[in-house]
Amino acid sequence: MAALSFMRVPGVPLVQPGDDLAALIGAALRAAGLMPQAGDLVAIAQKIVSKAEGRSVRLAEVTPSAEAEDIATRANKDPRVVELILRESRAVLRVSPGVIIVEHRSGIVLANAGIDRSNIEDSDERALLLPADPDASAARLRAELQREFGVALGVVITDSIGRAWRLGTVGIAIGCAGIKALNDLRGQSDMFGRTLQVSEVAVADSIAAAAVLAMGEAAEGTPLVLVRGADAGADSGQTARDALRPAAEDLFR
Amino acid sequence: MAALSFMRVPGVPLVQPGDDLAALIGAALRAAGLMPQAGDLVAIAQKIVSKAEGRSVRLAEVTPSAEAEDIATRANKDPRVVELILRESRAVLRVSPGVIIVEHRSGIVLANAGIDRSNIEDSDERALLLPADPDASAARLRAELQREFGVALGVVITDSIGRAWRLGTVGIAIGCAGIKALNDLRGQSDMFGRTLQVSEVAVADSIAAAAVLAMGEAAEGTPLVLVRGADAGADSGQTARDALRPAAEDLFR
Repeated sequence: MAALSFMRVPGVPLVQPGDDLAALIGAALRAAGLMPQAGDLVAIAQKIVSKAEGRSVRLAEVTPSAEAEDIATRANKDPRVVELILRESRAVLRVSPGVIIVEHRSGIVLANAGIDRSNIEDSDERALLLPADPDASAARLRAELQREFGVALGVVITDSIGRAWRLGTVGIAIGCAGIKALNDLRGQSDMFGRTLQVSEVAVADSIAAAAVLAMGEAAEGTPLVLVRGADAGADSGQTARDALRPAAEDLFR
Repeated sequence: MAALSFMRVPGVPLVQPGDDLAALIGAALRAAGLMPQAGDLVAIAQKIVSKAEGRSVRLAEVTPSAEAEDIATRANKDPRVVELILRESRAVLRVSPGVIIVEHRSGIVLANAGIDRSNIEDSDERALLLPADPDASAARLRAELQREFGVALGVVITDSIGRAWRLGTVGIAIGCAGIKALNDLRGQSDMFGRTLQVSEVAVADSIAAAAVLAMGEAAEGTPLVLVRGADAGADSGQTARDALRPAAEDLFR
């Protein structure tokens, strides 16, 4: 029976700036006895990618602009964090107590530019930004993991985001390589031979959703999941950017 | 190693109005050798629930209102389908060529009220509405499947929806029973002892996303997936309605 499986990989140590993340991931997979097979996907939490890439910022070194101070008052947030949110964003869509919805420089629309203050040492003093180029990070990690294990793999860098009309967060792919972002079924037939009208499946995001669930959160969270059985198209050439809705089609800006 | 697994279940026949869906699902699980275990979840595509509940409507019997005719012109859609969309909805949020974003009577915000014209026999003549009460459908199916298999199970009724800022569809839980809609981690500590600020995970939606991917679409689609290893809280008492963002918190209406 074909199964799509998400295997939580323990043993990733606390990641420090400059760490060789692919090596840490490879060691954790081997130690867990989970040898990647051709077509497997490696789902990696954004936090450890950002940490390895040195994307942690000391808040004491951030001077908020007047705009950041103003938005911080409206959002009831630390003005230094708001300053970082603004620097990381192309546009501010909404400001509300506790949340600033922005278009991140990567094009992703999300709250607070994905800036995180939990699960970081000295978190009262530091904030963690998203990777500078998550697709590039995914491509690099993919190349390194493929070299180490000698099989074709995909990599998905996950983050958890909120939704406009639904409560709770879900995982999305903020960066990916070797996996379809979208599976375009338009023009294919359904089982009655009728042409499908709207069928473009967000493959990488769907994988990320369950991967983040498998990672868990809070104290017991692990940032690494091996995904098997996805049949997700290793050489599509797509990246996470392919899943961004063009501004011209945006009905809710 | 703890794994979260989605097992596609073949052998569900074409469902007809009035069919005993739990019996068909039970037979498909047995025939596939997939005996549900305590804590497993059964993910069921909305289409077969709607079909069994007789939610298919002959378009020839639908008379569009003036409002439906007007919106149909702006959306470039069949006025009879638009009439059904309006009847199924509480509010229209946006109208754009090909898509009408509504708040469905269940409270779910989605395109075209979830009305589907693919994968239905005589689809040029009929449209398929969402189940009248998807949470009630899930609770009923759960009770029947638990009786048949003698173990505690959860049920998720899935549909695929678009997103405001991202391309491609993802599965969500439009109805559920015996599974947490949300896992509220607020107040728990992260691994450094810091209280988590925003951590309410959309469990049922995350499960639905991968389940819909495992189902597949188009000609080879199967509407049934058995989910194992989710640890998703069999007796939370939550339903899919618990994942709806209250209108007072809606920044994008």
